[in-house]
This record gives sequence, structure tokens and C-alpha cells, in this order.
Amino acid sequence: MAGNSYGQLFSLVSFGESHGQGIGGVIDGCPAGVTIDEDFIQAELDRRRPGQSKITTSRDESDRVELLSGVFEGVTTGTPIGFFIKNKEQRSKDYDNMKDVFRPSHADYTYTQKYGIRDHRGGGRSSARETIARVVAGAIAKLVLREMGIKISAYTSSVENIAVTKPYTELDFTEIENNAVRCADPETAKKMVDLVAKVKAAGDSVGGTITTVIQGVPVGVGEPVYDRLEAMLAKGMLSINATKGFEFGSGFEGTKLRGSIHNDPFISDENGIHTKSNNSGGVQGGISNGEDIYFKVAFKPVATVLQKQKTVTVDGKETVLDAKGRHDPCVLPRAVPIVEAMAAITLLDMLLISNAYQLPKHNEL
Amino acid sequence: MAGNSYGQLFSLVSFGESHGQGIGGVIDGCPAGVTIDEDFIQAELDRRRPGQSKITTSRDESDRVELLSGVFEGVTTGTPIGFFIKNKEQRSKDYDNMKDVFRPSHADYTYTQKYGIRDHRGGGRSSARETIARVVAGAIAKLVLREMGIKISAYTSSVENIAVTKPYTELDFTEIENNAVRCADPETAKKMVDLVAKVKAAGDSVGGTITTVIQGVPVGVGEPVYDRLEAMLAKGMLSINATKGFEFGSGFEGTKLRGSIHNDPFISDENGIHTKSNNSGGVQGGISNGEDIYFKVAFKPVATVLQKQKTVTVDGKETVLDAKGRHDPCVLPRAVPIVEAMAAITLLDMLLISNAYQLPKHNEL
Amino acid sequence: MAGNSYGQLFSLVSFGESHGQGIGGVIDGCPAGVTIDEDFIQAELDRRRPGQSKITTSRDESDRVELLSGVFEGVTTGTPIGFFIKNKEQRSKDYDNMKDVFRPSHADYTYTQKYGIRDHRGGGRSSARETIARVVAGAIAKLVLREMGIKISAYTSSVENIAVTKPYTELDFTEIENNAVRCADPETAKKMVDLVAKVKAAGDSVGGTITTVIQGVPVGVGEPVYDRLEAMLAKGMLSINATKGFEFGSGFEGTKLRGSIHNDPFISDENGIHTKSNNSGGVQGGISNGEDIYFKVAFKPVATVLQKQKTVTVDGKETVLDAKGRHDPCVLPRAVPIVEAMAAITLLDMLLISNAYQLPKHNEL
Amino acid sequence: MAGNSYGQLFSLVSFGESHGQGIGGVIDGCPAGVTIDEDFIQAELDRRRPGQSKITTSRDESDRVELLSGVFEGVTTGTPIGFFIKNKEQRSKDYDNMKDVFRPSHADYTYTQKYGIRDHRGGGRSSARETIARVVAGAIAKLVLREMGIKISAYTSSVENIAVTKPYTELDFTEIENNAVRCADPETAKKMVDLVAKVKAAGDSVGGTITTVIQGVPVGVGEPVYDRLEAMLAKGMLSINATKGFEFGSGFEGTKLRGSIHNDPFISDENGIHTKSNNSGGVQGGISNGEDIYFKVAFKPVATVLQKQKTVTVDGKETVLDAKGRHDPCVLPRAVPIVEAMAAITLLDMLLISNAYQLPKHNEL
Repeated sequence: MAGNSYGQLFSLVSFGESHGQGIGGVIDGCPAGVTIDEDFIQAELDRRRPGQSKITTSRDESDRVELLSGVFEGVTTGTPIGFFIKNKEQRSKDYDNMKDVFRPSHADYTYTQKYGIRDHRGGGRSSARETIARVVAGAIAKLVLREMGIKISAYTSSVENIAVTKPYTELDFTEIENNAVRCADPETAKKMVDLVAKVKAAGDSVGGTITTVIQGVPVGVGEPVYDRLEAMLAKGMLSINATKGFEFGSGFEGTKLRGSIHNDPFISDENGIHTKSNNSGGVQGGISNGEDIYFKVAFKPVATVLQKQKTVTVDGKETVLDAKGRHDPCVLPRAVPIVEAMAAITLLDMLLISNAYQLPKHNEL
Repeated sequence: MAGNSYGQLFSLVSFGESHGQGIGGVIDGCPAGVTIDEDFIQAELDRRRPGQSKITTSRDESDRVELLSGVFEGVTTGTPIGFFIKNKEQRSKDYDNMKDVFRPSHADYTYTQKYGIRDHRGGGRSSARETIARVVAGAIAKLVLREMGIKISAYTSSVENIAVTKPYTELDFTEIENNAVRCADPETAKKMVDLVAKVKAAGDSVGGTITTVIQGVPVGVGEPVYDRLEAMLAKGMLSINATKGFEFGSGFEGTKLRGSIHNDPFISDENGIHTKSNNSGGVQGGISNGEDIYFKVAFKPVATVLQKQKTVTVDGKETVLDAKGRHDPCVLPRAVPIVEAMAAITLLDMLLISNAYQLPKHNEL
Repeated sequence: MAGNSYGQLFSLVSFGESHGQGIGGVIDGCPAGVTIDEDFIQAELDRRRPGQSKITTSRDESDRVELLSGVFEGVTTGTPIGFFIKNKEQRSKDYDNMKDVFRPSHADYTYTQKYGIRDHRGGGRSSARETIARVVAGAIAKLVLREMGIKISAYTSSVENIAVTKPYTELDFTEIENNAVRCADPETAKKMVDLVAKVKAAGDSVGGTITTVIQGVPVGVGEPVYDRLEAMLAKGMLSINATKGFEFGSGFEGTKLRGSIHNDPFISDENGIHTKSNNSGGVQGGISNGEDIYFKVAFKPVATVLQKQKTVTVDGKETVLDAKGRHDPCVLPRAVPIVEAMAAITLLDMLLISNAYQLPKHNEL
Repeated sequence: MAGNSYGQLFSLVSFGESHGQGIGGVIDGCPAGVTIDEDFIQAELDRRRPGQSKITTSRDESDRVELLSGVFEGVTTGTPIGFFIKNKEQRSKDYDNMKDVFRPSHADYTYTQKYGIRDHRGGGRSSARETIARVVAGAIAKLVLREMGIKISAYTSSVENIAVTKPYTELDFTEIENNAVRCADPETAKKMVDLVAKVKAAGDSVGGTITTVIQGVPVGVGEPVYDRLEAMLAKGMLSINATKGFEFGSGFEGTKLRGSIHNDPFISDENGIHTKSNNSGGVQGGISNGEDIYFKVAFKPVATVLQKQKTVTVDGKETVLDAKGRHDPCVLPRAVPIVEAMAAITLLDMLLISNAYQLPKHNEL
């Protein structure tokens, strides 16, 4: 409620700062009896970790997670899972010249005004390093969802003006991990990698979008009228650093279609009732309808650019900021596992809530 | 938590169905001492009510709200405000032929699957008639915000491909109520009205976008890292019927700019620290920065079209639906006050949370 | 969160004042498919209503409940159930002389200080009339629990120094409704009725305790470590007007036993594992263990006495209050259904949460 | 919500097991700008730690807390405070013979049934070792409350039948830390210490009560009707291991007084409005009235006794348990700081909520 916890029945509270001792969290509400595959959790962290390719920041953190509780003999016990990841390669001195300056389009100014105090080193709490905790919780959520046959796949669908033009149904998701931008379309991926390299060389930064597809969700997940599945996903996505927008199903483009075209006709076959098209994005009336759930998230260009920028000091005097430090020219490749993580946490939470109301009758107890 | 309540410290729980006895709700957490202007609340409802113009549904509901508690001698007492609006002009017979049919892109199928039972009359709980409750709570939130100098303005910014091209800073918000689509740009408004009339005549429907601007918000509202102000707004907007997307500040277009261009430089003048541009949309690091907050919401074309559509019965048999009833060809004009209401509720809630942490010291008590 | 809602997955928000238009509420999270027995709900309200016997207040309210939503053709639809009970026999003039006076041990002073405004008529929101909403929600919770074989029985176990000495296991709960104090022991009941009548005649008031027994709860309800079943029940009970204490199982008396005596040995028979004694009160480690859950709640003597009392005016001047009005000399008989209601709401809520974590595996979906 | 988090605006989530790696937690919602006195936090932990006297368990844990985030240069930043305390002196082998046995009046049976899996070593999550996290959060809450002039004092008020007979107003709270049972009355303390030593020698255990007094709370804290201050305190207290009851103000004894005697007359003097007596326990209508808040909590005798006890195995076979291990014969001395901690957390949380609604007007912003 104070803002650092997420989820109701499956919940994560995170803590830690970019240049503090580390990042940690507590997952509460993981069902008991889930086999914890620590290698999988670490692999997810590796997808997010800095220094993984030439087009990400060169800060080199191994980001080894330590599970501190809640798992006994490799299996969850239904009690809270505490975890911690030590910061190792902080270089706080890189931030000395930013102590008294508000970096443009960062959280320096707002944190200072809100809290009256600010850990300026590496952005402190506002750093995207916090998302480590999300990836850990997301990995555990994925392990639970996997047992239910649910799969979440995200990929970079555009970088600046370079966009994947094919619909997700024509893409091969196994390609995602084969390129440095995590794009499901190999040809587009090449262009994206080249662009990011060029932008990096210029000391600038670039944004784009990530598309997510969730497959295997049963009908019935989502709690109208306020906790609609898409509303919960929207909150989860917009809680990620640097995001600017969210759309699901036909999204903003769908506003340009007539209802007679946009509607998804129901059909019936041996697999039951389905829709012929899926402009609904797998959600109708706030409840999953059994079709693929898909949505797109917008990420702005990274606020840190290695160019001189006009700004003001904490005393309100004009100054010029000449940023140093190790930064990503484009967050998208490393944001892919973060988006998946927030999707997994949100979906599992809503699944548990939905499941709560399926009470057994007396004779079934 | 079960999905029909919204907000933490300023909260709304709503109840009621389209063709039941009426729509009501309870507002909990309205600060004490607020003068309740019932005419203003009714005026807000009138902006939402059906039958208000030729391009909205002809269902004619006066939608008179009755406040049942929480107000004493015209002033809020800090206790919950219950309210009720009677349904009057239901024509449930119009829905008789839909009892056993799943209407495409409506919530019929998902409600039936989730709950095992469905009030089919007019969409029951899934009807946008529920948003009456939001408008009442939003009107009361606006009364509180007004005392703090905060103003919320929303307008239709596109209908299908007809879009307002000017930025909001060049528009005159007093124009919004001067046309049937609630567009702030009179010339664009005319084109929009013509389009909607044409679509209505064809028995079809059309979507679009609504832009919202919030002015006067102090620095410091929003609770990182998960309850960022934009995340809370996103959830609020996506909880509205028929929405497909949300973007704030530079939004999806902002993903196409370089960081060096997209960043908002800080400047300092006699009014304190401000940003020169506002791609951040008034929020940085999840916290309001004192600039205007603005965002855009996508609405799909209305699912009910007065044309024959293929679909299936509740038993999974193919059928053709020939919808009757009174429907909006375009929800945007009536959605404007709903978007404002959700913005007001969300903002006031976050303001209260933010305010909670400003504890007085001992000698100030 | 603002204090007028209770419960997480099965929740109640209530509204209304003693001398306002009425009392109402919204129940959110009632499972779909429950047959609503309106006569049962009304019967529960009748157990709580004023004017039911010579030893209760003579305010004569029929307290007819109107369900406004959430029920379709007699069955719950899983959507929120709004309800309202009109106030009819207010006599607000009785309170005119209390407008500017703080009644001792009432909420007049604290409401005025907290909110800066007070509806003085009949105690406004602080009146026990609010508990009508609890009884309605409790009745619906009981209908759900009944389907699971769970039964809740409460009875007056002491009035002042007159106490039931038999353990609940030796009492016949069908006797509870056979006397005006709702005591399960007929002989003690007579003495209690006589005492209350005597106290009433003296214009004074009297307190006592209510014992509650919940039977048929499956093992596993309650969420350690903070949301232990007994902690949630304690909160529910202490949220009732005029309560002063809560104890479960062996309670305060249990503090006087040695561990070797107090422990409940496990035994095993054809019905599975049970405990031989039940000092644990059906809860171990915060989780129900399948034995009867029982607890006791203390109620203070009613604050309104028809005697002259020293007090102060809202301006801090000394004065003498000579209370008029119709009041209960003893709340216990009417509090019995309220205690049961809060027990039912709390238990169902915790049952739903517990049930949430019993996720089906993929092949069972 | 899953049970391991406590509080709304000032919240604690805890994790860890008795014989796992350690106990930790995250405090979210600590106001920014609070100077963190680490020595004070450690001193509070030392009051709780095992091995502190001859009448507590001989498990020797130093319980050194490490703050992992949220504090910058000795001051809170308003961001979450993560912390961890390593377990050091586990002797899990002591529990080998309990792996397949349900210890009477422990949580072994209910955890096994609820979760299907159990960390049997030292009680796992159900161990009172979890309360370390509460003491850390409570210490930080106390630091905030201290700045507001609020003081919380708890003491052992009875052990078995040996009880402090003086009211708290006649006791000297500085005596509490001068004896091994933490009783505020030195003479009674001696008798209690002797009793506990005798019980320990007999391999048995004993219970009792703790009285808490909170001084300096301003008028207005507590959110009727459900989140009354006493209801929140009741939940907090009953969430502590081994508790059996809660009463505030006149409590259960108050049920034996007539209203004319029990009522607290208002008086007015140079300090404003006060009550002459305080049977209300500092709370009226669920809201603090400015008088001392006081309440009593019942603790059962410790479930582990070093005597042979009949019980059953996990397979339901009868067996005899002969417990080993290091255990407290009486939890009261070590529970005193835990009770204070839960009182501090609860009170600060409710203070923040109450403060939220004191919105500044526009011209004050």
C-alpha cells in the first residue's frame, strides 16, 4: 500500500537501491508444493542482467539470487520466500557530480521534493535495478503457471521506427533469445541491433515497444468491474520504469475499425466455443475468454544520454549536466524478461483470486 | 478485492445491473467538511446520461441520484456516502432473444463461464450503466480536488480516423460542452458528429480516443515503485468498459524519439523549478512533478451493432444474432465524464496516501 | 481501508446513520450460485431488531431489508449485492438537548474532534444501528457456510455476575431463542431476564459476555502469521460497538494452567486425527484444526443511562446530562446475532482465501 | 493478504524459519527523514533474544540485525527498509525425533494439513522466532512515534495466579527492565521469578498476561466502524504466537459494572477536555480520546514441556513424545517487547491513515 508491494494473494514486496547493499524482496502467497528450479530463476535473471551484450550497459553484475526462506528440500512450503541479490559492481563515484543536480527526465527532482532526502547514487530506489526483484518473483510465478499449462512470451516489437510487421501468430518465439534485442523476427532484429549500436556510439538513447503473448489461460480469470484482467495488467506494466503506454488486443489501432469489423464472432468446434478473430485480446468484460492474451507496452528512450544537457541544481540554479556512467542505450532487450515477470505475477495473482470463489461443497471437502 | 471496489483511502464500491432496480455505490474516505454541491453531481450525471443527444442511445433515463448518508446539513461528515440511482426505462424484452445467445465481443460468454449464471438483461452487471456510480464518486472527488486548486478536463480527441491535430495547450476547454461529441476543437467536432451520425444510420458503431489533462497537481503525488501515479491511472482507465489502451505524456509516439530530444530539461524561474517541455506527462519516477498531467485512452467501437452477426448459442450451436435495443453508435461523448471521474477518484486517492506521510511533529500537534 | 469496509475476498462495506434515511451496504465477493433465502435474512434481522421484547429498547423498527442487486431469479450471480433498510421510527427531537453536549462514554467527543462535524441525532454513524448491515451480510455468509456444513451458534453467557457455569458442550443450543436474553441455559436465562428488568427499572444499564461456537470448519482455515484465524475473529468482534474483550479456547483462564495440563493431546480414531481436549479452541498456529472453534466476547454496560450525569458541552463547559430516548438496558440479547454475523463474515472470508491456494493442476482444469 | 504482511500505510512483511538461514522482513511506509538509532533497534532485539536470563531458553542467539536498504546517511529515505537476522545456533538434530510426530498444541498438525508439507525443524515458520521481524519494525515505529511524543510501555502483569494488583497508574515503569520477568512491580516480580524457576525445574511451562500502556496519543486515531483502534490492536495482539485473549480498558471485569458507574464523566480544565475515569481505555467509538490507551493480552503456557506426552504420528499412530531442545518455560518476559512492537506498528499505521484525511487547502499547499 505504501507503494512497494504488488499483488493481493500472490504478492511481492521489494526493497533495495542501485548502489546500496543489494536488491531483495519477499514473495508471499506462493502455493505450497511447487518444485523450485533455481537454475530457471537464475536464467531469468541472466536475461535481465547488465553486461550481457554489446548493446547493453557495461556494468557487470552477476546478479546471483539467494533464496532465504520458504523452500524446504527444494519445494515451496506455502510460507514467504525471502530473497536477496548483492550489488557488487557499484561505482558510486560516477554519480558524485550528480549529487546536487536534477538529471532531466529522471526521478531526482520528484524524489527530492516528495521525501526531502535522496540517495543520489545511481538513482537510488528509482533505478531500474529494482526490477531484479520482479524477475525473481516472476520466475517463481512462471513455475506455478507452467504447471497449469500457461506460457508467457514477450519480444521487442519495435525500436524507434523499426517495427515487426508480422502479427505474433506468424512469428517463431524460439528466435527471441537468438539475438541481442530479443526480437522474434530475425530480419528485423538485425536492423534493430544496428540501430541501437549506432545510437550508442552517438551517446544517445532510443525507445520502442514490447509485445507479450500469454497462452493457455483458462476462461474466467479477471474480476470485474474494477479489477478487470486488462486493468491489472495495465497497472503492472505501467509500474515498470520508463514505460509510457499499454494497449491490448486491437489497441489504439482498433479505434479505427467499425464495430461490424472489430467484433470477434463466436464459433463452435470440437474444442468448444472460440472466437474467430481476436481483437478482444483474449479478454471480454474484464475476464479471460480462453483465447491468447496479447498486449503491447511502450518504453521511452533511456533518460541518461552521454551528451551535455541543460538542467538545474537542487538550489534551482541553471547548470549543464555531462553524464558519465555505464548506461543502456535502449532498455528493451533487458526489459523483455521484466515485462514477462510482471505479466506472470499479475496473472497468477488473478488466477488465485478467481480460484478462491470455486468453493467445494460439503460432501466434497 | 472481489473486484467491485476501487481505491484505498478514497474508495468506491459499486453495485447494480442494467435492468435491475438501479445502480448504487458507497464512497468511503471522503474527507469531512466538504460542501456537497448536489447540482454539480447531477450535472455530471447529465453529461453521462443516455438520450442526451441525437448521436447517443435513445434509452431515456433521468438518472437522478439520491445521497443516502454521509452528508449532514450539506457537508460531508467523514462517514461513508451511500447513493442510489433508480433504473426507470428498462426494456428487458428487447433482450429476450439474447438470453440463449452469446453476443460477439460482449461479456456474455465470459460471465456465463466464470459465474455459471448470467443476468442477460441488458448485459446485467457488465453493462456500462455501472459507470453511473463512478460519475457520482468522481463528482465528489472533484469537489474535494477543486478546493485544492486541481482541475480535470477530458475531451474526445479522435473518432475513427478523425483526430484533433492541435496539442491540448492550443485548445479551449470551454468548447468541450458546446458539441455533441465533446471535442475541444469545434471544427473537428463537426466532422466527428457527421461521422457518428452516418455510422448510426448504417447500424454500425465506431471508436476513438479521449485525452485528459489534469492541472494544478502539487509535486509529490504517486507511490513508487508499484503504485506510480501513471500505473494507478492506467488501471483506472482500463477498468472502464470498452477501453483498449492507455498512454501518458509522449506515449507510443514518444518511443520514436531519441533520448536527447525526448528529455525534458529543467528550468528555474520565479515560480520555482519547472520543465521546459513535458514529454514526461507530468510524472517522473512515478511521482507528479508539478507540470500538467495528460494521457490518452483508447475506446473500441461499441460491440452492439444493428446488423446480423454470426455467433453461437449457450449450447454451442451456430446462430445469427439480429440485435435490437437502443444503443450508442459511439461511446466517446458519454465516456468523457467517466474518464474524468476515474481520474478524479484515482488522483484524490493518491493525494490522500501521499498526504498520510506528512506527519506533524510533536510540537505541531 | 477508510474503515467502513470489512473483509478481503468476501467483503462488506456499510453506510448510514441512526437518524438518517437508513442503513445499507454492499456485499462483494459472494460466490455465484447460492440460493438466497430472503426469509432467513429477515429472520436474522428480526433477532437484532429493536422492540422485540420488554427488555430491549422500545424504538419500533420493522427493519425490512431490500436486496437491490446481485441476485437473479433467487440465486446469487457473483456480482455485488447492494441492500438498504429504511429508518422509520426516528425521533430525532429526543436528541435535541444532546446537540451541544458530549455524552459520557459515547463517541460524541471523539467524532467531533476527528471529523470536525457530527451528526448528533441518535449517535449518527456511531450508533449500533449500523450493525444491521452486518446482520444482512452475516446472514448471506451463513447461507454459503451452511452449504459447506458449517454452523455458528452464539448465546449470552453472562450478564453482570450471573454466568452460565456449564461448558458449551453440555448446553442445548435450541434453547437460545426460547428466552429474551438468548441464553442457552434456561435456568440462568430466567435470572438474567429478572436482572435486566430490574436494571431497566432503575434507569441503569448492564453488560456481560457472549459465547460463540463454530462447528464443522474444515482443517486449514487461517493465514499465518498475521492473519491467523483467531486474530481475524478478534478484529471482527472488537469492531462491534460496546465490546471490551475477546478470548478464545481456554482464554484468560487458560493462563492459569500448566503446559502439561493445558496441552491438547492428539488422538486417532476412525474419524481421523483429533484432539482429546480443546483448550486450543479449534485453532493451532493460527489455522483451524477441525475441532469446534469457540470464543467469548465482552460487552460493556450500555453508555446511555436514564440518570443524571455530569459532563461537558462542546464548548468545554460543565453541565448535567439528563438523557431521554429509547434505549436498551443491556445489549446482549440483540448482540447475539451481530456476533454470529461477524463470525460468519470473517470465517467465510478466510475460507475463500484458504481455498484460493488450492490450485487445480493443468489436467484438472 | 496471504497472511505474512501486516499494516496498510506502515507495513511489515516478514519471512524466515526457526532453523532456516534467518529471519528478515521489509518495512514499507516508514516516513522519510527519521533518524535511525541502530543501537536502539538492537537493544529492543536484545530484550527479545533467547538466552538473556536463567528463566529463558538457553538457545544462544546474538540476533544482530542488518539493515539492507531504505536508510541513507543514517536517515530514512521513505523507501522500503529491508533487514535480515541470521540464525546461528540452530540445533536441528534436536528435532529429528519430531519429524514424524505432531507435537500437542503446536502448529505441526495444522501446517501439515494446510500446506501438505512442513519444515519440522524448530517449528519452521510457526516458531516464535518470526517475532524478531516484528521487534525490528516495532523499534522503527517507536522511533517515529517518539518524535510525536508517544510512549509505549508493557509489563508482565500476571504469571499463572501471581498477579500485579496495583493499577498501572501506581507503578513505576522504570522497574520493568530491572527483573527477569519484566514486571513493573518489584515485589510481585520476585514471586514470579521464583515460580518460573520452579516450573522450569519440573520440566513444565506456565502462562500469564501482559499489560500495555500507550501515552501521548492525540485525539482522533482509529477508523470507525470496522477499523476501530481497539479492533486493530486486538488483531495485532492475537497475531502473536501463544496469545489467547485481549481486553482493553475495563475489559472483562467491566462487564460486571453498571453503566452509571462504568461511564467516564467528561471534565474540563486548563488542559482541555478529559475524562475523570478511564474505563474506556483511551478509545471511544473506535477513536482515541487523548487519555492513556491500555490493554491486556493473555498468553497460554508454552506448548513444549519436557515431559512425556501422548500424541500421534503423521500416519495417525499413537505414540509418546519425549521432547528435547531448549525452550522457554514462560514466554512472558520475552513477549513484552513483542507486544510493544505490535502496538507501535499498529498505532503508527492508524496514525498515518488518520493523518491522510487532514488535507491542506489550496492556499496552504
